[in-house]
Amino acid sequence: MVDETSLNDKSGRLLAQMEFLREVDKLKNILRRTSLMDGSRRENSAEHSWHISLAAMILAEYSNQSVDMLRVLQLLLMHDIVEIDAGDTFAFDMTAKASQAERENLAAERIFGLLPPDQQATFIKLWEEFEGGETAEAKFAAALDRLIPVLTNFANEGGTWRSAKLHRGQVNTRLSPIGDGAAEVWAYVEKVLDEAEALEYIAPEP
Amino acid sequence: MVDETSLNDKSGRLLAQMEFLREVDKLKNILRRTSLMDGSRRENSAEHSWHISLAAMILAEYSNQSVDMLRVLQLLLMHDIVEIDAGDTFAFDMTAKASQAERENLAAERIFGLLPPDQQATFIKLWEEFEGGETAEAKFAAALDRLIPVLTNFANEGGTWRSAKLHRGQVNTRLSPIGDGAAEVWAYVEKVLDEAEALEYIAPEP
Repeated sequence: MVDETSLNDKSGRLLAQMEFLREVDKLKNILRRTSLMDGSRRENSAEHSWHISLAAMILAEYSNQSVDMLRVLQLLLMHDIVEIDAGDTFAFDMTAKASQAERENLAAERIFGLLPPDQQATFIKLWEEFEGGETAEAKFAAALDRLIPVLTNFANEGGTWRSAKLHRGQVNTRLSPIGDGAAEVWAYVEKVLDEAEALEYIAPEP
Repeated sequence: MVDETSLNDKSGRLLAQMEFLREVDKLKNILRRTSLMDGSRRENSAEHSWHISLAAMILAEYSNQSVDMLRVLQLLLMHDIVEIDAGDTFAFDMTAKASQAERENLAAERIFGLLPPDQQATFIKLWEEFEGGETAEAKFAAALDRLIPVLTNFANEGGTWRSAKLHRGQVNTRLSPIGDGAAEVWAYVEKVLDEAEALEYIAPEP
């Protein structure tokens, strides 16, 4: 590290921001359950965050409500950072789900706490907005976060749907935020899921 | 994949966009020369694109000129996509540098060509804006693209500076866009480079 005492006080803000930018590098080591499209390895949360942000750019026209695209991108770029401490919680792991909120709150406190106070407040607010899922921007962002794993699981002959032995009702429930954010995208996803069920990538309703 | 003929013509646009989103997954397999901060492996261009986009959010206040942050993020999220075909060109590989523009132009034509024509035009325009480096947004975006590898190389005892045996003048030239986009960030980087030179991570001027 650079000797931070050699920089004057006015630079304290920039040093804190640089420390945050070093810390978030760890998101590249947080593995998700889903794989790359080519199945070669599991995906990490940093590259996933990039992919869904790019998807927001491409699919903006399908948002059910008019959205501030800058805030959509900000939500998508930052919302997984808490996983650095809390880990990626698999949507169907009910034990992990039970402790997820507490683990993520502690993570948000520590990691966003590296930022200058005004930016810490901004990031907490963005993160709460994403988690709350109430605003038009949070709804559209959530739709993209759920969409890309559909493409990935289909490309991997069922991927996590198959390995977790999920049935169609479970998958539909998990993916319902897609319709809440972007109805036309959901219509496409339903066709993908029909095909996935026909191919036995997803179990039929029991 | 889903039988695309089963979807009506109106869906052709969405199908093209989904195909593009599947194709860009390949950016996660494009390895850069730089490593993660912890040195555990080389970084890929998708996670790098996420990191610099997040850096834009954090460091917006340091842009030399007032910028449209949405366009800065769009530039950062999309500018490396051409590497899917053209590969990551190491800044100091002069042979590769010579053919870089031609390789990247062909890549842009093919990959952005997967998009509906209006979005293809938008992406070509964004990419040309980033490459041109003339607008306030392109200058600030370029600054962030150069900044993060400074943090990474320093954290890795010199990283690519050391492995490529670079001297301070070469590093300064390569990193000069940081000052063009964000002078206060450049002042910080200069201190990091002084320290790197003192630690012999970077060779002195010959």
